[in-house]
Amino acid sequence: MTAPTLRPGGRSARVQESIHSAVRQLLEEQDRASLTVPQIAARAGVTPSTIYRRWGDLSALLADVALARMQPDNDPTHTGSLRGDIRAWAEQYLDEMSSEPGRNMLRDVQAALKPSYCATIIGGQLQTILDRFPNEPVPGVDRLINLIAAPIVFRILFSEAALEVEELHRLIEIAFSQ
Amino acid sequence: MTAPTLRPGGRSARVQESIHSAVRQLLEEQDRASLTVPQIAARAGVTPSTIYRRWGDLSALLADVALARMQPDNDPTHTGSLRGDIRAWAEQYLDEMSSEPGRNMLRDVQAALKPSYCATIIGGQLQTILDRFPNEPVPGVDRLINLIAAPIVFRILFSEAALEVEELHRLIEIAFSQ
Repeated sequence: MTAPTLRPGGRSARVQESIHSAVRQLLEEQDRASLTVPQIAARAGVTPSTIYRRWGDLSALLADVALARMQPDNDPTHTGSLRGDIRAWAEQYLDEMSSEPGRNMLRDVQAALKPSYCATIIGGQLQTILDRFPNEPVPGVDRLINLIAAPIVFRILFSEAALEVEELHRLIEIAFSQ
Repeated sequence: MTAPTLRPGGRSARVQESIHSAVRQLLEEQDRASLTVPQIAARAGVTPSTIYRRWGDLSALLADVALARMQPDNDPTHTGSLRGDIRAWAEQYLDEMSSEPGRNMLRDVQAALKPSYCATIIGGQLQTILDRFPNEPVPGVDRLINLIAAPIVFRILFSEAALEVEELHRLIEIAFSQ
């Protein structure tokens, strides 16, 4: 990630937020391929050189925005059971990542300085769920990532069709039957 | 006189092969970011417009070369047992994809017209292995892709470190214990 140490509310953080927000708005209005730095700068009310100085080029900025969007808006849903929580999380993740913005996010984020931050975000979410059930025997977070998040992402990027929900459920069962 | 389709050995196929081969050579000699179309054209002995006409741009050409390289050079290794063959295949795949050229291939191929061809190639390899042991109960190819290839690729693209060989072996055991 390019700018992890920004003091929230500082001038630099506000400039960054207005640029991120301009990118998000423009991505809703137009095709990603037609997006330009001067256009983003105009929308954010900054000069293009502010963007070039901070990110270097458009793909680095898009990667940064994608990474920020990977941060979930809220805590994983509570369903009352461990498997239920994992299922709900996995179904939402499958849903979000298979969407057009999700696919673009997965591609953009690979140009980020630390795409590995993805696994950290996912791991944090899964750990939050596991921590809710301290007395149940649970698979490790790394195993859950390998069995659940990896097939979702792999199928989106390198396969004809997204992972079927039935197979997703079976993979979750497999994770818990070890 | 010359056939317009890609008859192997035809003029068009020979031009394509010399361009692919120029890309492979140049990628061994220099950084990918510094590669240009005129440079490739010069090495292949064609004009840049031949490349632009056929691929449109550099990233499409790189994607095409990456996809061609995904095609394995030989049949999966014979070890005498089903799990042995799967292990040997998976270890080689992990090895190749975690290398610098492998990582670049995974990134480039996403710009291809059909990145889904990756899953087809992997599936074909795994099916070849399964077909050697017609009398053993075996997991389906799709399950094997989800449990073995997906974590390998996901960890390379989105995580700090490659998949550990020990975890790879455990995932293979899980695939066979279902």
